[in-house]
Order: sequence, then C-alpha cells, then structure tokens
Amino acid sequence: MLNKTPTSWLYVKRIVRFGETDAAGVVHFHHLLRWAHEAWEESLELYGLDASNVFPGCKNNRVDPEISLPIVHCQASFRIPIKTGDHLKIKLAPEKLDLGSFQVKTIFERDDAECAQCLIRHLSIDTKTRHRSSLPEDIDLWLEASMINNGPSAV
Amino acid sequence: MLNKTPTSWLYVKRIVRFGETDAAGVVHFHHLLRWAHEAWEESLELYGLDASNVFPGCKNNRVDPEISLPIVHCQASFRIPIKTGDHLKIKLAPEKLDLGSFQVKTIFERDDAECAQCLIRHLSIDTKTRHRSSLPEDIDLWLEASMINNGPSAV
Amino acid sequence: MLNKTPTSWLYVKRIVRFGETDAAGVVHFHHLLRWAHEAWEESLELYGLDASNVFPGCKNNRVDPEISLPIVHCQASFRIPIKTGDHLKIKLAPEKLDLGSFQVKTIFERDDAECAQCLIRHLSIDTKTRHRSSLPEDIDLWLEASMINNGPSAV
Amino acid sequence: MLNKTPTSWLYVKRIVRFGETDAAGVVHFHHLLRWAHEAWEESLELYGLDASNVFPGCKNNRVDPEISLPIVHCQASFRIPIKTGDHLKIKLAPEKLDLGSFQVKTIFERDDAECAQCLIRHLSIDTKTRHRSSLPEDIDLWLEASMINNGPSAV
Repeated sequence: MLNKTPTSWLYVKRIVRFGETDAAGVVHFHHLLRWAHEAWEESLELYGLDASNVFPGCKNNRVDPEISLPIVHCQASFRIPIKTGDHLKIKLAPEKLDLGSFQVKTIFERDDAECAQCLIRHLSIDTKTRHRSSLPEDIDLWLEASMINNGPSAV
Repeated sequence: MLNKTPTSWLYVKRIVRFGETDAAGVVHFHHLLRWAHEAWEESLELYGLDASNVFPGCKNNRVDPEISLPIVHCQASFRIPIKTGDHLKIKLAPEKLDLGSFQVKTIFERDDAECAQCLIRHLSIDTKTRHRSSLPEDIDLWLEASMINNGPSAV
Repeated sequence: MLNKTPTSWLYVKRIVRFGETDAAGVVHFHHLLRWAHEAWEESLELYGLDASNVFPGCKNNRVDPEISLPIVHCQASFRIPIKTGDHLKIKLAPEKLDLGSFQVKTIFERDDAECAQCLIRHLSIDTKTRHRSSLPEDIDLWLEASMINNGPSAV
Repeated sequence: MLNKTPTSWLYVKRIVRFGETDAAGVVHFHHLLRWAHEAWEESLELYGLDASNVFPGCKNNRVDPEISLPIVHCQASFRIPIKTGDHLKIKLAPEKLDLGSFQVKTIFERDDAECAQCLIRHLSIDTKTRHRSSLPEDIDLWLEASMINNGPSAV
C-alpha cells in the first residue's frame, strides 16, 4: 500500500482510458512507460518546477535548456492486468545515481494492490556538446527533497 | 472564453506532456483526437456514468455492453501551436443527432484563446448483430443533460 | 478498387498491429490519422525526396528547413472495422489548394473494399517569422507529379 | 554489424517517422518498445504464422486463441539518438525460457551502428482460467527454428 509522506509531489493519479487497451481487453504494455514519464513531469510540476527549465520547446522558452536529460535505460514489470476505467495511484521513487545521472522508479497501484512497476534512467548532458554534465540545479533540488523522506530503501 | 455553466461535467483540464510534441517543438496533430476521446470519457465519469456501462473490457464487466458506439467520423482544426507544459481548458459540446447517433465537439483553450477544435461522431450499434440500435440509456441521459444548458448553438 | 497508375509513389501498404486495437477488438480510431501522416512521409520518400528537406530534426540537417508545413485541419471517416493482421492498401490523392497550402486524401482498402478515408491539410509558413509562404519547391514538384495522373477527380 | 543467417524472418526494417520524435528532435523513448513488439509481429508473419493463431480480435477469428501471451517484463537501452527518416535494421533474438515463457531481444542498428536494444518477456497462460500453460505450438516452432541458427549466444 502506498504510504503517504510529506513528499506529496511524489504521488499522482491516473484513470485508464479505452484507447490504451488492446484487443486482449487490457492495457497494451508500452503505455506504462509513457505513463511513468508523464508521472515524472507531473511530479516536477507539483514540486514547483517550470517545464521550460527542463524540456526544450516550451511556450516560455526563449532559449532551450542548456542541459538535456536523455533516457539511457527503461524497464517495466507487469503483475496484474490493468483495464479501462481503472483508477491508478502512482508513486514515484527518484534516486540520484551520481553527479550526472538519476533514475525514477514508478509504482502503479489499484485498490492498494501493486499492478506494475517502471524504472526510467536519465543521463545529464550538455545540449550543445553532447558531453556529460552535472544535473540541472532544479532537478538536483527535486531529487534531494524527494530522497529525504523517501529514499531508495523506501520502495 | 469558455463560459462556465451548470453542466460542470463538460469542462475538463489537461497539461501537455513532452512526449506529445514532435521535432517541430509543438504537439503532433493526432494527439488532439486522442485528447478529445479521453475528454469525453472523463466527462461521462464526472457526470456519474460507469465506464463498464459504455466500454467493453472494464474490470467490473461480467459481460460487455450490448450496445457499441463505434466512431464513424472525426475531424480537428488547429489554430495555435500547443507546447509542452501548456495548461489546456477543454470544453465539450455534445449533440444528439438522431435516435442512434451523436457527436461531441471539443474546444481546446489556452489562456482563454482557442487553440484547436475536434469533433467525434459515434453510431450506436448492437454489439452482436452489428445492426444500428438506439443509444444506450446512460448516454442518452448524459446527452439530454448536456444539451439543456449547452445546446448546439452554444459553441 | 485501387487503380494502379504511373504515380507508383502514391500507393503504400501497411499491416495492422495488435497494439493499435482497443478492447472492442478493432483499430482505435486515432491511429488512422497517424497512418495517413506516415503514408504521406513514405510517399515523399518513394518519390525521391529527402526527409531532411521537409522535416526538422533529421540526421542530415545542419539547419532545419526554412519552411514549415503545419497541419491546420484533418478528418477521417470509418466504414469497416479494421483488425489485427489486416493487410491494408493505402492510396494517396494529394491536391494543391493554392500557392501556400495543400491537402492529402488517403484511402484505406482491405481486400479491395474501402475501410476508411483520411484527409490532412497543410499550410506553408516561414519557420522563423511564422508568416505564410509559398510551398517548398520539393513539395511542389511532388504535388505536380502526383496530380498529373491522379487529379482530385480520381478519388 | 548484423550478421545475415538462414533465419531471415528475424530481420526486419523500419523507417523513423516525424510523429515519433519529440521536441528534443529525437525519437521519444517509449516508441522503441512499440517497435520491438511490432517487429516481433512482423517476424511471426515472415515465418509463416497467422496473426489469428496468436492474437485475439483478428478478422479470421471465429474464436480467440485459447492461450494468451501477456508481457510480464520489458526493458530498453538507448545508445545513439534516433531521428526522423533514419533507416533502421532490426534484428530479433528470441529465447525460450521454459515450457511456458520466452523473451525476444531486439537490436536496432543504423548504418551498422547499434542504436538501441529492447527485451520483451512473455508468459503463456490459459485465456479462460488465467493459469500458466505451455506455449502455443506455433510459437514453439518459431522459437525452435529461430534458436537453431541464432541462439542466445549470438547476440
């Protein structure tokens, strides 16, 4: 069962939509990875970060962020089929891996039973040179705040 | 500007996610149609309908609904590019066309400016015979309630 | 039935994949619009155009194209449900509308029966100023060549 | 470099489409997982299997297959950004794990350089009882044939 902590920005919700299922009647697998990324975006926003500081192409971007966060690895495991109309609780468990990379584990629950887990790992690179760089300050703050009450051992 | 009416279930919100944009930096067009369908699903839910009465394959379905609502036509028009992180207000304007069909117009706004419009038209058919049928009672109620304060002339 | 003409770049094929269906067992509607856009991209390629002359963000782009082709309108009509494994023949019928806009009608057939039609309308704008511009020369050539043997009346 | 073997059904191609990129100008990560699943479907077809023997909801299904193959795990690793118009060679390396499960590793190459890898693991279950079952005979044949010349050590 998801354990509410002060890090409220690490909990989001999602209702499953009909177009996300396939002819087997359950959610088609790759949508989970999309949901995990979107949950991360929602978490950053709930924490107070502006999307334009993290992602290129936002409305308020005069220039795009100097640091990019490409995904180098992702994975997902599926325990219980998820269906149209299901109300999912999503818990994020971020972890800073080193000065220039982090990962976000995402746990999907329905009625307090775990349905699936995802993990997405990001690298931090200089947008122009494509060389590795330290994490953007905003992301660093979000990671630190997230790990205080909700470290890697919490999941 | 969207005009709030008693039919509060016809107003939903959506925040644009990074994966919905393309390399031109704006939302790739076909996501609008997906959003329009998902807004319809959200509206039914806000009104009080259970997804399992409308869509096959839901968790609580012992049997799937006897009536299906295939889409026979859809269209979308785009006025203003939509970008990552944009907060969209979405207004639905449903219209019953005859005993066995209806359409839902969907208007997308950002900062009170209209960005795009979609329209999705559904037919009502008997799931087994594939012959035309009257609309399911639940959908009929939602249509009637939606059109009282918010008829076709409202948009 | 699709009538083969010398404009062979206007005919492409597609096999329907499982993840494109929904729990009703048929293709979820908005994929048709995606397929129509992808068929257009394939047609340009078959005709001999390089994607990097049309789309931003291609591998060989030192600079992105000076002209963008945003979609201002799209629509689709559905006649016959499409299912996993279906072999679709896709016919494109492009039409230049004026100096700065064009549309592509796309007809989807299975076993010589028409299943669905799409239409996507593009505007030509200067990427930097966002003002209307004439069509890129490459697109103009593709449109002219396509309409010689396969004008608007052909569909 | 991909090494052509007699198991020609394990090699497919794909051209990257514009709508698969995001505002960073590269393919958005989760499409890789979709491509991996679609490459598997294409491989089964090239080998000679009928989709209707594997997937529910196909045109020729009077009844759906008695055995389902839900995905229990997937993962992907990304080495080189992939862009619009890129021609990808895709190699599949299937592996039978036990009597009731298998996985398919998928390697994506552009210009003989590896861009990304995916892995999708399937379980075999009885569609009605949802209990574990042996693999469907068709899938078993495809796995055996695929592993003769192209075993797990080949990748």
